[in-house]
Amino acid sequence: MAERRPAQPEAGPASAPERAAVIGCGVIGAGWTARFRLHGVDVRAYDPSPDAERILAEVQGNANAAWADLGLPVALGDLTLCDSLADAVADAEVIQESAPEVLEVKRSILGEIDAAAQPDALIASSTSGLLCTDMARDLSHPERLVVAHPFNPVYLLPLVEIVGGDATSLGTIDRAMATYRGIGMHPLHVRVEIDAHIADRLLEAVWREALWLVNDGVATTAEIDDAIRYGFGLRWAQMGLFETYRIAGGESGMAHFIKQFGPALAWPWTKLMDVPELTDELVAAISDQSDAQSGDYGIRDLERIRDQNLAAILLALEANDWGAGQVIARER
Amino acid sequence: MAERRPAQPEAGPASAPERAAVIGCGVIGAGWTARFRLHGVDVRAYDPSPDAERILAEVQGNANAAWADLGLPVALGDLTLCDSLADAVADAEVIQESAPEVLEVKRSILGEIDAAAQPDALIASSTSGLLCTDMARDLSHPERLVVAHPFNPVYLLPLVEIVGGDATSLGTIDRAMATYRGIGMHPLHVRVEIDAHIADRLLEAVWREALWLVNDGVATTAEIDDAIRYGFGLRWAQMGLFETYRIAGGESGMAHFIKQFGPALAWPWTKLMDVPELTDELVAAISDQSDAQSGDYGIRDLERIRDQNLAAILLALEANDWGAGQVIARER
Repeated sequence: MAERRPAQPEAGPASAPERAAVIGCGVIGAGWTARFRLHGVDVRAYDPSPDAERILAEVQGNANAAWADLGLPVALGDLTLCDSLADAVADAEVIQESAPEVLEVKRSILGEIDAAAQPDALIASSTSGLLCTDMARDLSHPERLVVAHPFNPVYLLPLVEIVGGDATSLGTIDRAMATYRGIGMHPLHVRVEIDAHIADRLLEAVWREALWLVNDGVATTAEIDDAIRYGFGLRWAQMGLFETYRIAGGESGMAHFIKQFGPALAWPWTKLMDVPELTDELVAAISDQSDAQSGDYGIRDLERIRDQNLAAILLALEANDWGAGQVIARER
Repeated sequence: MAERRPAQPEAGPASAPERAAVIGCGVIGAGWTARFRLHGVDVRAYDPSPDAERILAEVQGNANAAWADLGLPVALGDLTLCDSLADAVADAEVIQESAPEVLEVKRSILGEIDAAAQPDALIASSTSGLLCTDMARDLSHPERLVVAHPFNPVYLLPLVEIVGGDATSLGTIDRAMATYRGIGMHPLHVRVEIDAHIADRLLEAVWREALWLVNDGVATTAEIDDAIRYGFGLRWAQMGLFETYRIAGGESGMAHFIKQFGPALAWPWTKLMDVPELTDELVAAISDQSDAQSGDYGIRDLERIRDQNLAAILLALEANDWGAGQVIARER
């Protein structure tokens, strides 16, 4: 068989911090906390919600189990749940903000972080859609703010999108890339700042199309999920859209393939390029179908099943020295 | 951990034919040929192209290697490359058409099949986008025509979309479902006839968005592929869009999650809902980027790498008794 690609040539330097702060402890913030701690980083966390402690513990439990599934050693960094944001960030080298996706909320919290953090701390926002430039507007040190957008479950999926704003310094980008590599991730530098970065634009396109399919009664949520996980979803765990189509195009090449495939774009599917209205009926239909599809399991069960499957897929790819498996290999 | 879902409750009867005909021996037709033969089905194939014999041999080689990777026994059905369509289909129980995606071409070839086949033969089209009703217009026995749309590589990916037209009989649908289960697949009955069925509508949405990202210089083909395969692509090999989001929504439930996520649909991304023009410049950009991304490998190398990864992922899911792995388990 073909010789494997060398370990990602763009891998570059990796450097985990010793002390991180996590602001916002929902599923994403708790996922960050677990990933930092699994890499020996001490975390000081802050979230005004009374649920924060419980969520942190539950997600850490899932993450530890996933690490065991991967056969990776666990030497947890310390966790301190702080009473104030200022206390959490005061001594941190890296501060990860995972507050609600509302620009004014982010601006306010990032402003508090900016004021309380060490001057050389790296500040990263987990935003899935907002622009770094917009969030940085009122900061006194906007040059050290960056978007670092992860994917759930944060402790298992390697991808993190790194996006700078107009004021972000190149040194901040380099430092962010090294920091996230240092905690076992594959940072993807998104060079152009757009709403929703790269991956969520693709996800949004699929979501829009899937909502139409449910709205029009073409397919249920279970049928749409099966159309993904028994087919192209399997392909995308290891190669993306373009490399897959390159193979489909065969020896005649990518340009030939695109020209052949291209006309499909002009097919009369314009309706599906509109946005369906999220009526109460549509929300209820999706919710009911999802209950019928997944309701035999509780959320905790589904989390464990998902994580066990992801760990098994990552191990399979590691054995083949490919893609996300190469990221796991670097953890050993 | 949670008890596993029982083997797909909807699995239903499975029944492989003894003799199949494959009309059109490009990558898809050759993939069908390999899958039929790996399940002991004798195949008579027809394609006027001088490349047919070579493609059939190459794809069969890949398929045999993949079967070995899966640890499945190989007892190949016979292959006969015929000189005429009529000769290929005369004695077949199931006829799989994989001709070019042009309605008039499909109508003509399906008409020839209809005229030469046994009256009780099942006729299936591999079309990825055309409607069964349109293709059946001129047939004398339209009740036995069905769409059976597979995914490349056909010998490894379990999904096949089954779609009937206005004239298709319910018995034909049932028979198609049993037939494809009989050759180790997961048939998904698409209950409403629409252009491109279900999966390709989702793929088309992603393709459209990805073309914009390249067109606007936001990301290269390699960056887009990495955004998929290090992140949500790993999720989709085992759960689809809705079950994944159900987990993300957590205990507050799916309806809450949709209402929270919903507003993103109204964000000002309307430009990306248009269709980018496939200019020579865009085609060249994609082709050049794809060369830079994948060019260290030949197409044959990439095929083997893809297949080895898919086999490893399927085995990992089989060990976890989940999703596509359950389809493989039924093969043993």
